[in-house]
Amino acid sequence: MIKQIGLFGFGCVAQGFYEGLLQNPQFGVSIKKICVKSDSKKRNAPQALFTTSDLDILEDPEIDVIIELIDDAAAALHIARYSLKNNIPVISANKKMIAENLAELVVLQQQYETPMLYEGAVAGSIPILQNLAQFFSHQKISLVRGILNGSTNYMLTKMKNQHISFAQALKEAQGLGFAETDPTLDVKGLDATYKSIILAFHAFGEIVSVNDVEIVGIDKLTSALLLQGRRTGKKIKLITEISKSTGILKITVKPELIGEQDSLYAIDYEYNAIEVSGNLSGTQTYVGKGAGSLPTGSAILNDLYLLLNNFQYSHQKQSALKKTA
Amino acid sequence: MIKQIGLFGFGCVAQGFYEGLLQNPQFGVSIKKICVKSDSKKRNAPQALFTTSDLDILEDPEIDVIIELIDDAAAALHIARYSLKNNIPVISANKKMIAENLAELVVLQQQYETPMLYEGAVAGSIPILQNLAQFFSHQKISLVRGILNGSTNYMLTKMKNQHISFAQALKEAQGLGFAETDPTLDVKGLDATYKSIILAFHAFGEIVSVNDVEIVGIDKLTSALLLQGRRTGKKIKLITEISKSTGILKITVKPELIGEQDSLYAIDYEYNAIEVSGNLSGTQTYVGKGAGSLPTGSAILNDLYLLLNNFQYSHQKQSALKKTA
Repeated sequence: MIKQIGLFGFGCVAQGFYEGLLQNPQFGVSIKKICVKSDSKKRNAPQALFTTSDLDILEDPEIDVIIELIDDAAAALHIARYSLKNNIPVISANKKMIAENLAELVVLQQQYETPMLYEGAVAGSIPILQNLAQFFSHQKISLVRGILNGSTNYMLTKMKNQHISFAQALKEAQGLGFAETDPTLDVKGLDATYKSIILAFHAFGEIVSVNDVEIVGIDKLTSALLLQGRRTGKKIKLITEISKSTGILKITVKPELIGEQDSLYAIDYEYNAIEVSGNLSGTQTYVGKGAGSLPTGSAILNDLYLLLNNFQYSHQKQSALKKTA
Repeated sequence: MIKQIGLFGFGCVAQGFYEGLLQNPQFGVSIKKICVKSDSKKRNAPQALFTTSDLDILEDPEIDVIIELIDDAAAALHIARYSLKNNIPVISANKKMIAENLAELVVLQQQYETPMLYEGAVAGSIPILQNLAQFFSHQKISLVRGILNGSTNYMLTKMKNQHISFAQALKEAQGLGFAETDPTLDVKGLDATYKSIILAFHAFGEIVSVNDVEIVGIDKLTSALLLQGRRTGKKIKLITEISKSTGILKITVKPELIGEQDSLYAIDYEYNAIEVSGNLSGTQTYVGKGAGSLPTGSAILNDLYLLLNNFQYSHQKQSALKKTA
């Protein structure tokens, strides 16, 4: 029975989760401690919940689920490892940490029979990992394609609609809390790359390293592409494509010109979208907010809901692939 | 443990399900009998599976799940009642039967502690009932809106793109197996109405009768609307809207002109789309094939998968509403 949460971080996403949890007393779960870097900030939650010592969570035997929503990937990995090794289910949204350590995290989950969920790490509010784990688990997937980065999509939309500069658009996105603390992760395409590595794993069961992804960030937008977009009425979007043909899994993340007929054409501002092509259902598209406090918080809340309902990623495709390898 | 299926019907959707099941031997489930109206047709499955007597399924103690995919709503209700009363989980895709008997079916499920799933009844392949039951179960929903009828959407797309007549478009849709056996259900908006009643129940926990839905079919398309669409570059779509304001749940199903900025604008041919607005996630849109053998079959297959994983609709919102009533 999950009853008490140890929460790491109280930034944008954590506050959205906190608000969502307060709206769902029927979960029967409450936050016992929140570990933050500085205890001097004024925060929108009872002061008694906060601590600056991770041991107040890690060494509390009453805490039975850990939710880590911090920026620091190394610290997040430390927390995830500790939780799994101590049989405490863990929820994370740290895409970099997860993407770079998938193999280890899967082994730990299996070895300690403890689940780890991370819907909030991919495409904000969209429950895509859950749908891949359930609805798409009994189909052959040929293609996953989408817009996975809310802040650059916000910038590209603003640049097109209001003819503002790259720098101005970036400033606006940061002001709204859409851009990561380090915006180079967004504009250089790395944030979308981490997400696509996680998606690729859940759709195809294979782990791809960052070095094997073809990445072009929107900081590399050429004036030729911008001009072509204006001339043709097409839109520039940072498109992720994960495909498998002749046994080889390929991931690309790059700005592309897309026309009105494309299902991703209408995806503007902080919205994300993911297309999945399955051999039975055909192509489905999931659209939702890819950033923001409550939207991403709702994905964390859903992970908690799923843990309460004994859901875990099956790693079925992954195991099947290992056996045939 | 679910091991053996009794299947009613072997039309378009049932054949898609059959094919999907063959691709998933890991389910550990097989079809024991298929009950059909006539045993003289040549069919794409072993002849020994077929019977024309429903008793061969209903009285077989080895059958532990019943899947009914027949047109006849009265017969489908008989099968659903029988299954639930005998503690046999049941999967159905008969939107008319389900929409018109929701109250009774919920009571039977609770009374006999036996689940009934019916993802295939709403929006073909899109796992919307599952997402409402899981991801949206801990949010307040304010609006559900969408295109729920693949055959009329196919017709409207053809009429716009190829300037063909209503009658011609209908003929084509029927030829492709998108239209219902009785096409008046599609063109008069009744098919979309049944689906929207089911959606309304799962999103808001309230049962609305067909008589309380404001329905305008595409057979009532005025030349004024057609002309206005051509002039403005907008598209005519059969739009379902389910909303709740000041405590009153309202459903409308009618042809509307929608512009390029609308998330439903790009939904053409047999595709369906459903927008759900939740107070935490914001608006999400789910797009997928709303008709066709394998796509709708994939929704049935997913219901079977969910039954194998002990999933059931919680009727949580419904119960909560009853208590406050």
